[in-house]
Amino acid sequence: MQLRTVDLIRKKRDGGELSAEELRFLIEGYCRGDIPDYQMAAWAMAVYFRGMSPAETADLTLIMAESGDRMDLGAIGGIKVDKHSTGGVGDKTTIALAPLVAAAGVPVAKMSGRGLGHTGGTIDKLESIPGFRVEMAADRFIDQVNQHGIAVISQSGNITPADKKLYSLRDVTATVNSIPLIASSVMSKKIASGADGIVLDVKMGGGAFMKTWEEAAQLAQAMVDIGLRVGRETVALITGMDEPLGYAVGNALEVREAIDLLKGDGPADLKELCLALGAQMLVLGGRASTAEQARTALEELIASGKALKKLKEFIAAQGANPTIVDRPELLPRARRQIAVKAQASGYVTRIAAEEIGLAAMRLGAGRATKDSGIDLSVGVILRKKIGDAVAEGDLLAELHAGEAGAERLEPIQRQVREAFEIGADAVMPPRLIHALVDRKGIHRL
Amino acid sequence: MQLRTVDLIRKKRDGGELSAEELRFLIEGYCRGDIPDYQMAAWAMAVYFRGMSPAETADLTLIMAESGDRMDLGAIGGIKVDKHSTGGVGDKTTIALAPLVAAAGVPVAKMSGRGLGHTGGTIDKLESIPGFRVEMAADRFIDQVNQHGIAVISQSGNITPADKKLYSLRDVTATVNSIPLIASSVMSKKIASGADGIVLDVKMGGGAFMKTWEEAAQLAQAMVDIGLRVGRETVALITGMDEPLGYAVGNALEVREAIDLLKGDGPADLKELCLALGAQMLVLGGRASTAEQARTALEELIASGKALKKLKEFIAAQGANPTIVDRPELLPRARRQIAVKAQASGYVTRIAAEEIGLAAMRLGAGRATKDSGIDLSVGVILRKKIGDAVAEGDLLAELHAGEAGAERLEPIQRQVREAFEIGADAVMPPRLIHALVDRKGIHRL
Repeated sequence: MQLRTVDLIRKKRDGGELSAEELRFLIEGYCRGDIPDYQMAAWAMAVYFRGMSPAETADLTLIMAESGDRMDLGAIGGIKVDKHSTGGVGDKTTIALAPLVAAAGVPVAKMSGRGLGHTGGTIDKLESIPGFRVEMAADRFIDQVNQHGIAVISQSGNITPADKKLYSLRDVTATVNSIPLIASSVMSKKIASGADGIVLDVKMGGGAFMKTWEEAAQLAQAMVDIGLRVGRETVALITGMDEPLGYAVGNALEVREAIDLLKGDGPADLKELCLALGAQMLVLGGRASTAEQARTALEELIASGKALKKLKEFIAAQGANPTIVDRPELLPRARRQIAVKAQASGYVTRIAAEEIGLAAMRLGAGRATKDSGIDLSVGVILRKKIGDAVAEGDLLAELHAGEAGAERLEPIQRQVREAFEIGADAVMPPRLIHALVDRKGIHRL
Repeated sequence: MQLRTVDLIRKKRDGGELSAEELRFLIEGYCRGDIPDYQMAAWAMAVYFRGMSPAETADLTLIMAESGDRMDLGAIGGIKVDKHSTGGVGDKTTIALAPLVAAAGVPVAKMSGRGLGHTGGTIDKLESIPGFRVEMAADRFIDQVNQHGIAVISQSGNITPADKKLYSLRDVTATVNSIPLIASSVMSKKIASGADGIVLDVKMGGGAFMKTWEEAAQLAQAMVDIGLRVGRETVALITGMDEPLGYAVGNALEVREAIDLLKGDGPADLKELCLALGAQMLVLGGRASTAEQARTALEELIASGKALKKLKEFIAAQGANPTIVDRPELLPRARRQIAVKAQASGYVTRIAAEEIGLAAMRLGAGRATKDSGIDLSVGVILRKKIGDAVAEGDLLAELHAGEAGAERLEPIQRQVREAFEIGADAVMPPRLIHALVDRKGIHRL
């Protein structure tokens, strides 16, 4: 019997479960242009209200993963483990984490994306290293991983075109906020990227897409479930995004902070997140039997300078000058530093991460739309984090700005100042690692 | 602040109520082509799940009513009362009812539609009268009502274009079955048609769009509410469509049955429905103070032959020869009559009205798609109705067929035979008039 799109929309509208064949008919028909946007929009809204079963979500993911180019990592020895973050402010984890786990012997063959809106993207950050090449042919990418244990490139133009087309439609039809659609979008790209194992960093809190524990836990579970159903070992950490990660927000500024981390310095929260995610990667990659063991190994790689050496090797392999690791002042620098000062005394009780991300975007560090240009040197450096004591007049943050005049900077200054909430009572720094989600369920940490 | 379509979709998705200004932005933007189908499809699916408030539904109705041509009946004296049926099988009510209430002094200035699928349309039925003109200029239409008290024309091409465009989209996105969208679609056309009062016949049962009491009651209440909110006195009857109305299904066959009714003959159920709807029209039209009084007046108009005389006047005014009223054998007649006989003895307990309607459509009486041609002569004549006793071999129905060969007729014969359910125990004929809905609420009858 001939499938009809309207019948499939009705089935989902009425709470039914589409079969893999029915989903394939929808997604492939949509990609070919046989099924119009308006029918997919109605289906997506029906999914928003009715959800999808775990089997349906996994089927959709695989069909989208198979819709375009797929990276074949078979020529790389060992268990390849990928990492993905759902997006936060100041999240430069990959830049430190990739060489760190590569130094531990887990091959890193990673495709990353660019930033949009208030969250940054790893590819933009890497490009702030002068000469760093983020595009290369697949065979060269594979060769580099085999030779150096690490390569990071920009997502290919034709990876998961079904997801790209569907996401653009969801964006203008108020159907983005659906857990199974978000989960299948993320996982389709990870699966097409070819890794054997996947470690997910699901951000939760004011600066994240998922604002609440319930949403973050559902998304993490949905993604882990997809991974396991399609035969990719997958775990997720649910981590806090109640304030920006680390102190630096902005491309070159964040690279510098990631370098500091591998030198044994760097912010405590960034280090904690890198060790927690890295430990899961080592376990999935068969380089440690427990997370505790893995963590010890990673700390030793930092302390011994081996992780930093791997970062230099990585930068050189991608065509840039590794000298910037020893002399980070060679990274692009913004022309002006503008102080943001406290107008009251007390303790920092809250930093609205999304506002800091938007302020950095307004300075030129991020894109308001896909086609905006960015300035790799600009951004915001926090000088206080939640829990810190401040006196009136203390430096809360610095804007690193380009040529913009004072009349344009003043509102950004205010935005950053107002992102800080200063209260009378001391508070604890917010919890960073909330839970681990694996094949056995959710484990609160 | 600039309205954005995606925000309005999100508002409805989250259960919000759109303002008249927001709905106007959506509907007018959609008609102009500024808002694409895919955004309207997402909005329609959100409405399917979230519904619309009574105020929202009335606003949408008015905006759609104002989207194209509107009939101005101001030049016609008296209170103009329109009638609308949600569509059934064998529903020839308008053909008898319009001249009947016109004979009672209620001006009838009516626009009707064509049939689609298993339900017929008044305009097709009237066109089976040779020479009957269903198109005329607005001024001529008004003149005819002023002179003869009655005129029925085909809906203008540019009436409620917003509803047409939206309905076509709903049809292919599984968003037809939404009470507020159905109610606003029907009422927008009635309001654009210009009548002061509206009597609705909401069909319920197997042969109707609304299968259950709950759906029919909700739709009736929604439509009455819209009418009252926009200043048109509106009442609805909820009537049964558990078997076809009367015996005849097919255009010329139904005209003949309507003529019979005005001659004092005709099926009991058809007469009952005409009197019930007509009584409400007379009350709204100020020609009777109670439904009982109105009913008596209508029965007298049939008995005296005045209603039949008005039918002849109506037919002549629209360019056809009124002789067909006295000699209905002049109406188009199908070439062949094929018997459908009972294969068991007992009592008719059920007649699947939708199947009878579809059988008539397959004979050529109706349209499978908007562009199909139809044969005005063909159809089905029932010989038994629910509650009738039958013996094996008795005639259940006759097919009136054109040139089609036996191999094409045999499955239609079977379809009609199988539409009859014959049981051992006698049953009562089904209830016809279930309830009256007016400004005071639902009154079960």
